Amino acid sequence: LDFQSCITALEKCEKPIIILLHGISYGLAIDMSSACDIRLATRDARMAVKEVDIGLAADIGTLTRLPKIVGNLSWVKEVAYSARDFSADEALRVGFVSAIAPSKEEGKRMALEMCRRIAEKSPVAVLGTKEIINFSRDHSIEDGLMYTGIWNAAMVQTEDVKRAMLSGIKKKKPTFEKL
Amino acid sequence: LDFQSCITALEKCEKPIIILLHGISYGLAIDMSSACDIRLATRDARMAVKEVDIGLAADIGTLTRLPKIVGNLSWVKEVAYSARDFSADEALRVGFVSAIAPSKEEGKRMALEMCRRIAEKSPVAVLGTKEIINFSRDHSIEDGLMYTGIWNAAMVQTEDVKRAMLSGIKKKKPTFEKL
Amino acid sequence: LDFQSCITALEKCEKPIIILLHGISYGLAIDMSSACDIRLATRDARMAVKEVDIGLAADIGTLTRLPKIVGNLSWVKEVAYSARDFSADEALRVGFVSAIAPSKEEGKRMALEMCRRIAEKSPVAVLGTKEIINFSRDHSIEDGLMYTGIWNAAMVQTEDVKRAMLSGIKKKKPTFEKL
Amino acid sequence: LDFQSCITALEKCEKPIIILLHGISYGLAIDMSSACDIRLATRDARMAVKEVDIGLAADIGTLTRLPKIVGNLSWVKEVAYSARDFSADEALRVGFVSAIAPSKEEGKRMALEMCRRIAEKSPVAVLGTKEIINFSRDHSIEDGLMYTGIWNAAMVQTEDVKRAMLSGIKKKKPTFEKL
Amino acid sequence: LDFQSCITALEKCEKPIIILLHGISYGLAIDMSSACDIRLATRDARMAVKEVDIGLAADIGTLTRLPKIVGNLSWVKEVAYSARDFSADEALRVGFVSAIAPSKEEGKRMALEMCRRIAEKSPVAVLGTKEIINFSRDHSIEDGLMYTGIWNAAMVQTEDVKRAMLSGIKKKKPTFEKL
Amino acid sequence: LDFQSCITALEKCEKPIIILLHGISYGLAIDMSSACDIRLATRDARMAVKEVDIGLAADIGTLTRLPKIVGNLSWVKEVAYSARDFSADEALRVGFVSAIAPSKEEGKRMALEMCRRIAEKSPVAVLGTKEIINFSRDHSIEDGLMYTGIWNAAMVQTEDVKRAMLSGIKKKKPTFEKL
Repeated sequence: LDFQSCITALEKCEKPIIILLHGISYGLAIDMSSACDIRLATRDARMAVKEVDIGLAADIGTLTRLPKIVGNLSWVKEVAYSARDFSADEALRVGFVSAIAPSKEEGKRMALEMCRRIAEKSPVAVLGTKEIINFSRDHSIEDGLMYTGIWNAAMVQTEDVKRAMLSGIKKKKPTFEKL
Repeated sequence: LDFQSCITALEKCEKPIIILLHGISYGLAIDMSSACDIRLATRDARMAVKEVDIGLAADIGTLTRLPKIVGNLSWVKEVAYSARDFSADEALRVGFVSAIAPSKEEGKRMALEMCRRIAEKSPVAVLGTKEIINFSRDHSIEDGLMYTGIWNAAMVQTEDVKRAMLSGIKKKKPTFEKL
Repeated sequence: LDFQSCITALEKCEKPIIILLHGISYGLAIDMSSACDIRLATRDARMAVKEVDIGLAADIGTLTRLPKIVGNLSWVKEVAYSARDFSADEALRVGFVSAIAPSKEEGKRMALEMCRRIAEKSPVAVLGTKEIINFSRDHSIEDGLMYTGIWNAAMVQTEDVKRAMLSGIKKKKPTFEKL
Repeated sequence: LDFQSCITALEKCEKPIIILLHGISYGLAIDMSSACDIRLATRDARMAVKEVDIGLAADIGTLTRLPKIVGNLSWVKEVAYSARDFSADEALRVGFVSAIAPSKEEGKRMALEMCRRIAEKSPVAVLGTKEIINFSRDHSIEDGLMYTGIWNAAMVQTEDVKRAMLSGIKKKKPTFEKL
Repeated sequence: LDFQSCITALEKCEKPIIILLHGISYGLAIDMSSACDIRLATRDARMAVKEVDIGLAADIGTLTRLPKIVGNLSWVKEVAYSARDFSADEALRVGFVSAIAPSKEEGKRMALEMCRRIAEKSPVAVLGTKEIINFSRDHSIEDGLMYTGIWNAAMVQTEDVKRAMLSGIKKKKPTFEKL
Repeated sequence: LDFQSCITALEKCEKPIIILLHGISYGLAIDMSSACDIRLATRDARMAVKEVDIGLAADIGTLTRLPKIVGNLSWVKEVAYSARDFSADEALRVGFVSAIAPSKEEGKRMALEMCRRIAEKSPVAVLGTKEIINFSRDHSIEDGLMYTGIWNAAMVQTEDVKRAMLSGIKKKKPTFEKL
């Protein structure tokens, strides 16, 4: 459970985490990336869910998270039971990664560009978005909407909402509160 | 919460709702379409989840519904954190829409053709299908099967089951009960 | 409920079940395959969710399982409301199957090759993987991690973990305990 | 479902509702009181869960709420299956009511005294208390704590917290914000 | 799990089960009674939760069911950690049983009188009551109300509702359908 | 959330925690005791849920835990909305404490006697009992039984089960493994 919570720390981090899978990405690489927010891969990445190969079905989070983050449960089971390699193209098709970069260099550039875009937004709003998506992934839509409603009530009182609205009128970039 | 429930009304509607996303589909367009049953897009549609841009993480349902209706959580987070545009092709690949139409005219034709096919079915059966899929999306398979069992018990007593079976024997289209 | 539990028996089976959809695969074929672990299809397979056509919305498991195993809820509703045919390519795109075989013969070969690979793994580990993935599909990540932790505690006491680790050092295939 | 939501309106009301059961309190009286916040009874009240007597197991909320509000499930089933009368003393012992009044007049006095005490508190705090208790009744402690955390974040920004703290220092009654 | 399901069979039985605890009621007696609908005890009954005494924390259902059927979690933990005896009076006070009989003979009479009263009701209504209470014990009130709504839809179509209403007008006992 | 997790640490502690409420037990005393396993009170203890009095509805766990540990939701709401004092007798009647001691000295003696009895049991079995009761309090009986089954599988492999069984045959106290 202690080891699990190291991985879960990525999920609980207040800031979004983007991961670039490249080269050989087995075992812990998959555990960690499953707990990150955004997954990218280079075209030549080789990935595998290796837990079954060490005679140990259970693990520190991959088997728990894959059914929630990937849109093809048949594929999740196939790669988890067989421990076979899969490519970036396959990972993109089933929804394990959301984009492929032609090379490691280009992948880093993509990831940093995403960071830059996200860093322009209100940190409170990005944090709230992460919290609400993670909560909603695990709960019914009824519960998700209730949780969202309370977040709104809390956040509408921050200065960021006012600044964002003013910036829309003034056509310039707003400066947001730090967390 | 009141505004949320306007959007949720689409989800609770007894009849299926088909939405065609075309042109610029930002903000409310995404909120509403996420609560509809079937999402189509024209090839040139530009979509974006804009909540983070107005300094307000939370929203009226998009962040809650996306993780349940799309099969790529990495993508959901990327577009929600960055508020960037995405195309119809991308929406189809990740599972946000289920088909793309070459043009708005063709899209309307596709949607109406779907309506026509669905309208031929028993309205009670279509309503039950919607209820069971929405319930199952939010509950364990154990609970979903229990709910389905009760629906069956209620519906098997309608005339539609008998009519549908007879029409199979007589090879002609049955006429079903109104809701 | 009795009929439901026949289908659910596939899901509860201690060993993984691989299904190859070929030819006309309607109704019961979809019910059964939804409860299997891994779904393959031949290129010429024609599939359909036919429950709505017999005037009976509810069913013995397809409507309950589809939202959990497929990554495109708009598509799930469209095929369930309309009862229309869909192809293997479409099934692959939305995540209903995880691979397509060019022919029935080739499909059997693919499935048996998967079986062979899985049969080389520790049966205890494969069973644990199936249990944890099925549990996690239905529960929050918090609950899934707790369940995984207990499985680990139980399994780490089997001989298989030791054998798997030794085999990694000795570079030869381990022999695992039967269930 | 429409009739259910009339009863549920009591539960969703932003203000606490106190009910005094007196005389013959059958059927709808039990449905309504189960959805209220605080239940009192006069010593001579005769209560019964009558749904089973009209050949209709299900109801508009009593059977759903009793297992959550009463601490003796054996008793809940016994009175629901048999539709027998129960007294105020029995209701107090199993936890259906929280106090008994010797007479209707005395009961009204008790209820109004409770109202008076509650009305002295911050309305925002009382509303939050109701929301959090109702949410926690239906969710795991993990989820309840998360929900509470967000409520705190929202409420700590109201003036009431400051006023309550000052009043503690100044030893006089604070005046709170209206809802 | 096989042994568990023998106990769970009591809970799943379509008819209500009343149990009378008398004499020494340890271990399996508590497991079984926790899965019954209505629990009675004779004044001299000695009960205990003994699992912890055989070095085995877990069990076949008592620890799982006690927190749901008894209204004092502190007491549940105290008797489960210490394996100490408890009396009928204590069981009544915390809500483990719903009534006490002075002797075994009197207890049997009480139980049979309850059976007789319940047997006069519509069997469909009693079954529905059991299903809805058991479902609601495990789910949120939102879900419980939804489940109740579907049960109503199914049951309102039985003859029993009509018979029960007529009998109310005619002032004589109705005869109900068998299950 | 940080403050909450200090309180939750009591609940997560591997060993059972017994608390004796005496004198004035307001606010934090109630928060902490709600997260303990076994609650006792001296006859003269004065308790109150004071959060509403500081203009702050939400709290660090009391409102979340009370509906799960006490068998009278009407009482929970009444004391939480009004912040009024309640006595040990009242706390025992509604199920907040499981026993009352005539004095602080006698209360300590009772608590230590409980500790002594529990310390004689297998530590692994007591830990498992705590885990299973806490899990079951928050989950459906279906889930609770599944969790229990896995715990059994893990624990049956410890030496304690063998020792406990042998001690039953040999009629002497077993010595158990430390955690």
